[in-house]
Amino acid sequence: MSVGDAAAKERKILVAVDEGDESMYALTWCLTNVISPNSKDTLILLHAQAPRAAYTALDGTGYLFSTDIMSTMDKYHNDAADRLIETAKNMCKDHVNDVKVETRVESGDPRDVICEMVQKLGVDVLVMGSHGYGWFKRAFLGSVSNHCAQNVKCPVLIVKKPKSNNLGK
Amino acid sequence: MSVGDAAAKERKILVAVDEGDESMYALTWCLTNVISPNSKDTLILLHAQAPRAAYTALDGTGYLFSTDIMSTMDKYHNDAADRLIETAKNMCKDHVNDVKVETRVESGDPRDVICEMVQKLGVDVLVMGSHGYGWFKRAFLGSVSNHCAQNVKCPVLIVKKPKSNNLGK
Repeated sequence: MSVGDAAAKERKILVAVDEGDESMYALTWCLTNVISPNSKDTLILLHAQAPRAAYTALDGTGYLFSTDIMSTMDKYHNDAADRLIETAKNMCKDHVNDVKVETRVESGDPRDVICEMVQKLGVDVLVMGSHGYGWFKRAFLGSVSNHCAQNVKCPVLIVKKPKSNNLGK
Repeated sequence: MSVGDAAAKERKILVAVDEGDESMYALTWCLTNVISPNSKDTLILLHAQAPRAAYTALDGTGYLFSTDIMSTMDKYHNDAADRLIETAKNMCKDHVNDVKVETRVESGDPRDVICEMVQKLGVDVLVMGSHGYGWFKRAFLGSVSNHCAQNVKCPVLIVKKPKSNNLGK
């Protein structure tokens, strides 16, 4: 691929979004700094949901969760994912009127989901927060951004939320 | 800082350049994808030279290098740095006519130099190749891009050279 072709073609920019402020900051930064108003870019908002296995183990008391609890938790996770994607979509509309936005919610380890989607969709730029996927999941999964930066083949933009923005929250 | 201000202000974009193809690819990618023709961005080309200590130890035979050899090596390193920066500057002129370009050559561990310069110059975006600073130095220093992504406060764009571009070289 000639580098010079990159500006002329319609770029696919994938933004990994999660429940943390940092990924939403990364999305806003991308909308302000990467997407130009008259570009033909497609913005793909990807949310990787925790796989069911992440919350189907024994509860704190040593008992297995009941089927009712499981389906309630499934619904909670799906609703949360929908709300998250909707919020991200609205942020895109607020910042850039004519950008083409696609959304995807996939189940699995965010590290694998992001890398797979980047390859499958032929993404040109991956944008993500520096921590990715909140402190809770990160404690189990390690740094998602670090993993993706090492494994995807396209350029990766890692956006860190300035500390001043975290104050008072 | 309000994110919305980022597009309006004059951004400082620092590109770390070294002797490897990958950093030049990162620069070209940045010129094509990040810098817009009518932007007020300032592009800072930074090259971190190996500190003298990196080649002042004993040579392979157990003898210390003589002063003559040392000054020859100093000159070689300085000339190489000048040529590198000149090449990078010409690439900028070829791609974007009106972009403001500043150049800096600093001595030290590239990991420290890049992080220090980002903070000192108030850089808005750091752009670098994914490996950074060639396989030889990387073997001693570890991944420069990984270190910088974790330590600088601004967004970091890590550009990996596609494998197809490496074939036949």
